[in-house]
Amino acid sequence: MTQTAPSPVHPVQQRYGDPSTEVPAQWNPVLQVLHDHKSVRRYLPDPVSPETIRLLVSAAQSAASSSNLQVWSVIEVRDPARKARLAEVAGGQEHIVQAPVLLVWTADFARLRQLADDHGAPLDGADYLESSYVGFVDAALAAQNAVVAAESLGLGTVYIGALRNDPERVAAELHLPEHVFAVFGLVVGHPDPAEGTRVKPRLPQAAVLHQETYDLPGQRESVAAYEERIGEIYSEQGLPFSWTERVLARLASRASLNGRDRLRESLAARGFRLR
Amino acid sequence: MTQTAPSPVHPVQQRYGDPSTEVPAQWNPVLQVLHDHKSVRRYLPDPVSPETIRLLVSAAQSAASSSNLQVWSVIEVRDPARKARLAEVAGGQEHIVQAPVLLVWTADFARLRQLADDHGAPLDGADYLESSYVGFVDAALAAQNAVVAAESLGLGTVYIGALRNDPERVAAELHLPEHVFAVFGLVVGHPDPAEGTRVKPRLPQAAVLHQETYDLPGQRESVAAYEERIGEIYSEQGLPFSWTERVLARLASRASLNGRDRLRESLAARGFRLR
Repeated sequence: MTQTAPSPVHPVQQRYGDPSTEVPAQWNPVLQVLHDHKSVRRYLPDPVSPETIRLLVSAAQSAASSSNLQVWSVIEVRDPARKARLAEVAGGQEHIVQAPVLLVWTADFARLRQLADDHGAPLDGADYLESSYVGFVDAALAAQNAVVAAESLGLGTVYIGALRNDPERVAAELHLPEHVFAVFGLVVGHPDPAEGTRVKPRLPQAAVLHQETYDLPGQRESVAAYEERIGEIYSEQGLPFSWTERVLARLASRASLNGRDRLRESLAARGFRLR
Repeated sequence: MTQTAPSPVHPVQQRYGDPSTEVPAQWNPVLQVLHDHKSVRRYLPDPVSPETIRLLVSAAQSAASSSNLQVWSVIEVRDPARKARLAEVAGGQEHIVQAPVLLVWTADFARLRQLADDHGAPLDGADYLESSYVGFVDAALAAQNAVVAAESLGLGTVYIGALRNDPERVAAELHLPEHVFAVFGLVVGHPDPAEGTRVKPRLPQAAVLHQETYDLPGQRESVAAYEERIGEIYSEQGLPFSWTERVLARLASRASLNGRDRLRESLAARGFRLR
């Protein structure tokens, strides 16, 4: 990998919103793309070709897969009316309508169920909670590779976890058979440069990276430092609350999950037994 | 991104084990790294510096996080004795001992619980099944960015899902508090060039990429084509079975999950209520 000229503030410093962060000795174009990530919520009307989506999916399929089970699939949604209905499920997220493509990533045991049925073989292991996590994780590893591939091509993306607000409606919309569950959506398109958001700082590394064993009390200091760094970004965006207030509100109660408290029932309705 | 000279067989063709796959018009060093991925199971004794691990973690923290909750943490394990004990949990995977670093990625609600307790605030939303998936997915997106960063630096990795064979033992080993759950490990080190494995072909794209709505019966043809392409690799590796036989055996029964049928109980023991 060739060396890339760092900007005055190094991307690692930008990621933590902390100009005192140590600058790494190693750097390359891949690290640049990874650190530059921003979720994009305003898109230009420019198209994204089917060839480009195929390239994102071959990148996605290049990610590791647990025991090579490959228990995920992705649905490429371009129909404006269908995107508009899925945007409604997601609480009216306008960028789903605006961007040319919504990729819906699924945990998919239907392919293996069909294979088992064709061979008269049992697939009882798929009925356990463990297998649902394997499907969710496999889908996430794949989708993240697609995100990195998209950003390397100058495209923007944003994950849409809010498809889980109403999984039955998503399943009906995409004709998902039993044993296929929509984990999240991913909007893909050309970023509108007018959006102009900055890279969002994350918690200090000391809070999330532990040596040998886990340290909880030490995280208080990191969270306090983080509040100052992210506060500036939130106030630029006109968001009135602190990170602490935002995360505590998000997870305060059953009601704050926006329907996702029903996830167990939704998975059961899709044939996931979760033993 | 600059153009990279493609090898005689294009990486996309290699990924599908199919030389008739269409060569993409676009290419760059990021796509190259993504498509070149192989899980590495033999390592040189060469060290990986703490600085390099910090760089992988800043790449990991650059991945999207659901509602910016950042409900994951990672434990960097270097102690040879601890790695040996964790290798035992994973059914004796020697590469965990061989490589200098094992990163254990966790779904982490302890940080937010401490914050909620400090503020006398409720965190009832964390008690739902949905929140456990958010933790697993957040950890997976982060870890996959770390994998891509590692491979861009010439390092090798392999995911260790088998840490879920005995989550209580992993938690004791890493002093994980309640509300922190080890999702998977990730071995990081310098690949031993003597391993010499090839890129593993994946299912034809037609099986996993769907247009507008999901198609199940059409996947039979893709799986049949895949059996031929992967059969060659399996026989090179001395593995006697077809992909179909391998995946059906993996998910055949409760016993074939190697202890992961207990995942619900393990999560409950770690304080995850999964309502």
